[in-house]
Amino acid sequence: MLGNFTYCNPTKLYFGEDALKGLNEELPKYGKNVQLVYGGGSIKKNGIYDEVTAILKANGKNIIEDGGVMPNPTVEKLYEGVKIARDNKTDLILAVGGGSCCDYAKAVAVSVNCGEDPWEKYYIRFEEPSCEVLPVACVLTMAGTGSEMNGGSVITNHEKKLKIGHVFGENVMPKFSILNPRFTLSLPKRQMVSGIYDIFNHICEQYFSGDDDNTSDYISEGLMRSLIHSSRKANANPGDYEARSNIMWTATWALNTLVAKGKTTDWMVHMLGQAVGAYTDATHGMTLAAVSLPYYRHIMPYGLAKFKRFAIEVWGVDAAGKTDEQTALEGLAAMESWMKELGLAMNISELGATPDMVEGLADSTLVLKGGYKVLERDEIVEIFKESL
Amino acid sequence: MLGNFTYCNPTKLYFGEDALKGLNEELPKYGKNVQLVYGGGSIKKNGIYDEVTAILKANGKNIIEDGGVMPNPTVEKLYEGVKIARDNKTDLILAVGGGSCCDYAKAVAVSVNCGEDPWEKYYIRFEEPSCEVLPVACVLTMAGTGSEMNGGSVITNHEKKLKIGHVFGENVMPKFSILNPRFTLSLPKRQMVSGIYDIFNHICEQYFSGDDDNTSDYISEGLMRSLIHSSRKANANPGDYEARSNIMWTATWALNTLVAKGKTTDWMVHMLGQAVGAYTDATHGMTLAAVSLPYYRHIMPYGLAKFKRFAIEVWGVDAAGKTDEQTALEGLAAMESWMKELGLAMNISELGATPDMVEGLADSTLVLKGGYKVLERDEIVEIFKESL
Repeated sequence: MLGNFTYCNPTKLYFGEDALKGLNEELPKYGKNVQLVYGGGSIKKNGIYDEVTAILKANGKNIIEDGGVMPNPTVEKLYEGVKIARDNKTDLILAVGGGSCCDYAKAVAVSVNCGEDPWEKYYIRFEEPSCEVLPVACVLTMAGTGSEMNGGSVITNHEKKLKIGHVFGENVMPKFSILNPRFTLSLPKRQMVSGIYDIFNHICEQYFSGDDDNTSDYISEGLMRSLIHSSRKANANPGDYEARSNIMWTATWALNTLVAKGKTTDWMVHMLGQAVGAYTDATHGMTLAAVSLPYYRHIMPYGLAKFKRFAIEVWGVDAAGKTDEQTALEGLAAMESWMKELGLAMNISELGATPDMVEGLADSTLVLKGGYKVLERDEIVEIFKESL
Repeated sequence: MLGNFTYCNPTKLYFGEDALKGLNEELPKYGKNVQLVYGGGSIKKNGIYDEVTAILKANGKNIIEDGGVMPNPTVEKLYEGVKIARDNKTDLILAVGGGSCCDYAKAVAVSVNCGEDPWEKYYIRFEEPSCEVLPVACVLTMAGTGSEMNGGSVITNHEKKLKIGHVFGENVMPKFSILNPRFTLSLPKRQMVSGIYDIFNHICEQYFSGDDDNTSDYISEGLMRSLIHSSRKANANPGDYEARSNIMWTATWALNTLVAKGKTTDWMVHMLGQAVGAYTDATHGMTLAAVSLPYYRHIMPYGLAKFKRFAIEVWGVDAAGKTDEQTALEGLAAMESWMKELGLAMNISELGATPDMVEGLADSTLVLKGGYKVLERDEIVEIFKESL
């Protein structure tokens, strides 16, 4: 049942090899002061920094440097970014990077004019902005998080061992995003496959919820099939522009609210993975990969019909002469083969987690209620043990 | 290959049985004068008119009546609507009806402040608005055209025997649309299935183009599978709210530009069907149904790989031991069975076309170039003969 919902994604997307030209159409709509958000500096090596700053200068903008955004942006970095924006009267925050940069840009955007502590307000109390929100835009260099067309923003608090995401409304979504698949080609292969699994899991988290089929499930199956197809091509040849462009486009649609319509959504793989991330600082997609199969095998009995459908429609499993459970398990086995083919992390030990961390990981795991089974603490411990 | 494109669909959608409450959130954003656009008056019989006007009044709006929009809105009606808007200083045009009302509302919106003849400017010279465009919104009562979330607007000029569509940009798309599946339940069954085929054909027109697969094709397959599934449920029980809601949601995504990304798009079934419509005044979806299979069987050899994929992925045809042609033909046979099951028009004779019209129909058919085969005149004649 689709039920009652609203849908609004006003982000304008410029896609393709010429996408950066979109900056010339968009920049005149904003004030002079552009806060340029980026990560560790790879964009300075691969030329993207020079391309973007040249266009900013040609459009008469003041460039306010805000580099050094880490893969899991911290609350300390957020406070720093807010100060930069206040000191420089930022008119537009332009994130050039992957999901971390874009998530961080949104966190700064809702915090600059906020009189309270943004960590407490947005990531602990989950309140909505009551102040003016700065406009955010994005030049995407890594496909995965979908942050380029949603209101999501994940911030990590190392002191409290918390990594928390807030999904803001359409007023916080990027005003525009530049999606040039060529910008993703220079990523190390490990980051590419990590992003691919992040995309796949975003779809799973929405698909594996609810007990009735609706249009969202069918769209999700299409997106998963497209992603599996293109990921195999990209894995064989990371320079395959067509495959990389389909992956980039799938990433956007995997997490811009469309396929969540009518779904309760699960998100427990993210909760488990984020706990691992908080303990190990491992790459997001890899933490998801490492806990997924133990989690799905655990909840499969509670959503058997959907896992059977997943096996047949996404993995092409032939159900003839098999029990529902056999079919469902064959689907997860096909998924496991594909994950190994891509070289994903298949357990949390290889990400640095150790048996003595299990209790702490369970403590750090937020329990959500949208999936087929609301996990008890002992189930979480068991899943982490199986993930080791 | 996805190639270069932009995507922007800012329309806010309120979906579900409670969708009309969205009016209370949206109306305060606009001025007092609301031009209420509707058709022949069925909304007065089924209570929707009363519900909408009560909310408009509760929000302190002046209601400017603009009823009587015909199924194929005419240029004369457009001029009338423009005069109404100018005389009453309309702030918002609210279309309550199906695609015709919404198409007409957009045509009025781009014309009110236009110093030139809108028919000449928009539908003959295909220019973009250079004036201020009035905001449009929609309360949808029939699923099919997708007009609720796109910039499309088709206007008919009977004097010149022309029915022309202009696809405007995001500034003309409805600001918001109210999608309550319950509002579609009172439609006669023939209109319901006609709308279903319109939706299906919108997807086909985009899917059957280009020679390489991309994410759009996978999303299209998902939408088609969802539609086939829900159409069978709605055909068995037109009061099935869940089925009708999935059909309504699929209609929106079938034609809001998403599945056209990376595709050249065909639209020849629409060109052939519209010629039939001009001669017989038959329902749009039925004209499409009546010419589709002769057209697809004709172009199948030029896009064989895609028709084979369509058979396997959309209709579940088992390709084992069959030639590509056999598989592709089996897919079209499955589509034919489904169409007959729904009670669609399977030839143009039952819509009132006669053999002596064939040459005239061919003369009235605009030839487009996005599909697998650019049709010659003798091929068009042949397709119409096969459609009789």
